[in-house]
Amino acid sequence: MAKPKNAITPTRDENFPEWYQQVIKAADMAENSETRGCMVIKPWGFAIWEAIQKDLDARFKATGHENAYFPLLIPLSYLEKEAEHAEGFATECAVVTHHRLEAEKDEDGKTKMVPTGKLTEPYVIRPTSETIIGAAFSRWVESYRDLPLLINQWANVMRWEMRPRLFLRTAEFLWQEGHTAHETKEEALEETHMIHQLYADSLRDLLAIPVIMGEKTEAERFPGANSTLTVEAMVQDKKAIQAGTSHYLGQNFAKAQKITFVDRDNKEQFVHTTSWGVSTRLIGTLIMAHSDDDGLVLPPAIAPQQIIIIPVTPKEDTKQAIIDSCHALAETLRHEKFQDLPLRVKVDDRDLGGGVKKWEWVKKGVPLRIEIGPRDLENRKICLQRRDQAANEKSFIEREDFIRQASDTLSEVHKSLLERSLKFRDDNITECSSLSDFEKHWENENSGWLLTPWAGTREQEEELSKKHKITIRCLPLDQQDEPEAPCILTGTPSTSRAIWGRSY
Amino acid sequence: MAKPKNAITPTRDENFPEWYQQVIKAADMAENSETRGCMVIKPWGFAIWEAIQKDLDARFKATGHENAYFPLLIPLSYLEKEAEHAEGFATECAVVTHHRLEAEKDEDGKTKMVPTGKLTEPYVIRPTSETIIGAAFSRWVESYRDLPLLINQWANVMRWEMRPRLFLRTAEFLWQEGHTAHETKEEALEETHMIHQLYADSLRDLLAIPVIMGEKTEAERFPGANSTLTVEAMVQDKKAIQAGTSHYLGQNFAKAQKITFVDRDNKEQFVHTTSWGVSTRLIGTLIMAHSDDDGLVLPPAIAPQQIIIIPVTPKEDTKQAIIDSCHALAETLRHEKFQDLPLRVKVDDRDLGGGVKKWEWVKKGVPLRIEIGPRDLENRKICLQRRDQAANEKSFIEREDFIRQASDTLSEVHKSLLERSLKFRDDNITECSSLSDFEKHWENENSGWLLTPWAGTREQEEELSKKHKITIRCLPLDQQDEPEAPCILTGTPSTSRAIWGRSY
Repeated sequence: MAKPKNAITPTRDENFPEWYQQVIKAADMAENSETRGCMVIKPWGFAIWEAIQKDLDARFKATGHENAYFPLLIPLSYLEKEAEHAEGFATECAVVTHHRLEAEKDEDGKTKMVPTGKLTEPYVIRPTSETIIGAAFSRWVESYRDLPLLINQWANVMRWEMRPRLFLRTAEFLWQEGHTAHETKEEALEETHMIHQLYADSLRDLLAIPVIMGEKTEAERFPGANSTLTVEAMVQDKKAIQAGTSHYLGQNFAKAQKITFVDRDNKEQFVHTTSWGVSTRLIGTLIMAHSDDDGLVLPPAIAPQQIIIIPVTPKEDTKQAIIDSCHALAETLRHEKFQDLPLRVKVDDRDLGGGVKKWEWVKKGVPLRIEIGPRDLENRKICLQRRDQAANEKSFIEREDFIRQASDTLSEVHKSLLERSLKFRDDNITECSSLSDFEKHWENENSGWLLTPWAGTREQEEELSKKHKITIRCLPLDQQDEPEAPCILTGTPSTSRAIWGRSY
Repeated sequence: MAKPKNAITPTRDENFPEWYQQVIKAADMAENSETRGCMVIKPWGFAIWEAIQKDLDARFKATGHENAYFPLLIPLSYLEKEAEHAEGFATECAVVTHHRLEAEKDEDGKTKMVPTGKLTEPYVIRPTSETIIGAAFSRWVESYRDLPLLINQWANVMRWEMRPRLFLRTAEFLWQEGHTAHETKEEALEETHMIHQLYADSLRDLLAIPVIMGEKTEAERFPGANSTLTVEAMVQDKKAIQAGTSHYLGQNFAKAQKITFVDRDNKEQFVHTTSWGVSTRLIGTLIMAHSDDDGLVLPPAIAPQQIIIIPVTPKEDTKQAIIDSCHALAETLRHEKFQDLPLRVKVDDRDLGGGVKKWEWVKKGVPLRIEIGPRDLENRKICLQRRDQAANEKSFIEREDFIRQASDTLSEVHKSLLERSLKFRDDNITECSSLSDFEKHWENENSGWLLTPWAGTREQEEELSKKHKITIRCLPLDQQDEPEAPCILTGTPSTSRAIWGRSY
């Protein structure tokens, strides 16, 4: 089978958004459903989410958090308590108004279902759970001895998106939402920073995605938060994706929901709360960060299968020996480990052409592909191909050497993806100190991020953002104490830097 | 601290339903929320669900199933396609009719949220997902090569319950739902039986609950199914709980949703589908099966903590040595295994009285409690108490012996709970061959199950059930080929036996 020019049409350069949809389709990860804006996550996509969950869940538990589960439906009255929060989510809430259906027959005798049993108070499907978890916290917290309260929930949430896009922006998505309550502002802020770092670590170690760690400006904050920390990833069209956020909510929700405690001096105080989350959007970020014109590229830590072994069986008389040899190799490899977990290895012994099989696994992004044919069997070699390298590159390795090096090779794949992403990102962040350069930069549709001194107001930021269809992605935490430089807009001297970019 | 007569008020004998609520409260497992009929699952309860998930998920994957995720919201038109199914769930469907809110200020300046953005077609929150998963299957299946299709989903579902009860019957609950499609009736039936056995195994090994494996009668079947297999547990008030079900759906959903495939003879055929599920109801079953008048009793496999170590520190000069010794013991025990997993051990070194701590862990159901005091430290002994034994029973064991035996002791606890449940159940199933004995039996409010020959019609079954507020729990699979005996109602000779009982 001849190598196709590229397995995905169109290419990234030709049409990035369409390429993205086609990568998902070719890897069989997800598809749209008839429920408006909602996706079906197929097994290959869901296995990636399971790996993300497993990694994060272990990190949350290791830092003292416990999982719990809160109701899907939130009484409208809860939302009304925190006005800024309510207004922030109002335009995208799915509302439950009835609790039963009546079957009616239409004129053709066909069953029609009609809503009935109108609720006296409607519910919204949670767009996020601050209000309902806050109500529980107000029951649970009495004394400083009950603090800190460190809770996480894995759940589905719903935000009625007008322009849905698989994984990146869907009406229903899966996520985790951490919710914590603390005695002091300092402890709550420390929690938000700890989680911020935890997210950055997980994205680096698991997804091979480097992030910029920063704080959102007031205009971009979570509705109801005092401050929002973000991890921002750059993907291959140079747009930004907000991959995870960690919010310090001050005493706003505590006051709205009366979450009080008796402190060490026997005085009643409001708690300080935080919330933080990442979602199935990470899968979209992953796809846009690493995949190429042949399809999905998966970092090994997240790959549902890390090594695919394909028997090449041109002749009937060696066929069974080769297949057996492949299974034996797989079994041996399953005793090796990558990042402390057994290698995930699959033999594809389906009765299909070798080229068909190879390209299926290329498109699914499996990090290492191995072929074993008659000559390899004889020489005790294997033919190795790496997904992070060109599809026609291959190397022949002693079988025993490969077994010994398998885990290291996976580490190399991880490292190469991470370094490539890091270099791409850093090559596409430009320092900018003049407004005219700034405005010129955004004329190019394909331009990367700008890093500028900034001292403007919220209104000035919003005006500039709207004009160029960009946003301040964040104020990078490690660049808030720079030498003074004039704000690109106002000229006011500023020690603070902002990153601007287009985003999903 | 004197031993209380019992830690839970009321006792099981005094008021079983109220005892059940109090056990949940005392163990801090869950609570009601302001969302009608919906519970908050607290960390101790949720950790039990996580253990159930982990066990079942591994079993599903080992038998070839893959996880996926389907939309929460189901278009009304999907429900209408399978009339029996739609009518079965119509009275308990939460209906989404609007997709946004408008914030209005009332006369006091308070924000009021009002639903707006009316949907042209309403959605229901999934009460179960046959219809929406069937729609996906109809897109995915083309040829016999795509079969069997073996999918599982972990999800929340919603059924608007009129009389909710924590874990057992809540408007929202968590579950897994398996959905599979097959070429033939035989393969689909084989799948339902395999899963039926898988559920029985998991309940026995994980929850120490023995079940009766049987088939539901037509009256009790899942709406839209051709046959329903069930695992039925008896709890301590002698009522039945349907703990899990596995349905053969025939070609009913395939025809309603056009799930067809091209078979081996190149003919288009409808697939045969199955569905099967267990839910957070298992936690309610677990509580009612094993707990006692001192609170929750947890089988070791499911316990969030299997061993609690409580330092007993009457004197300041030995306090730190004892606490250190407890932590050292915990660390050693964490290297031991029970059912192939590291032991879950916690030291409770909070600055609280020993009695307070002991009773907290009794009420939380931890299988083994260990105390170490000054004399124990000196003698290298530990004081062991087992949750499956009376709260005042204790034994003093050499520390090294305990370490060696810890896993075996947990196995003994598991075995004793399982045997106790099995004996209780078998003692409370009575064979019955006459209608007068049958009718007399149900006069007693506290009577167990009856096993009878049965050959009645659906109508006769429903009449008899209604009269005595009982149901046929199942036709036990191992008793469908018995010697002929006259049906208790009709006198018709029957080789089939039915189990009747009150139920949750």
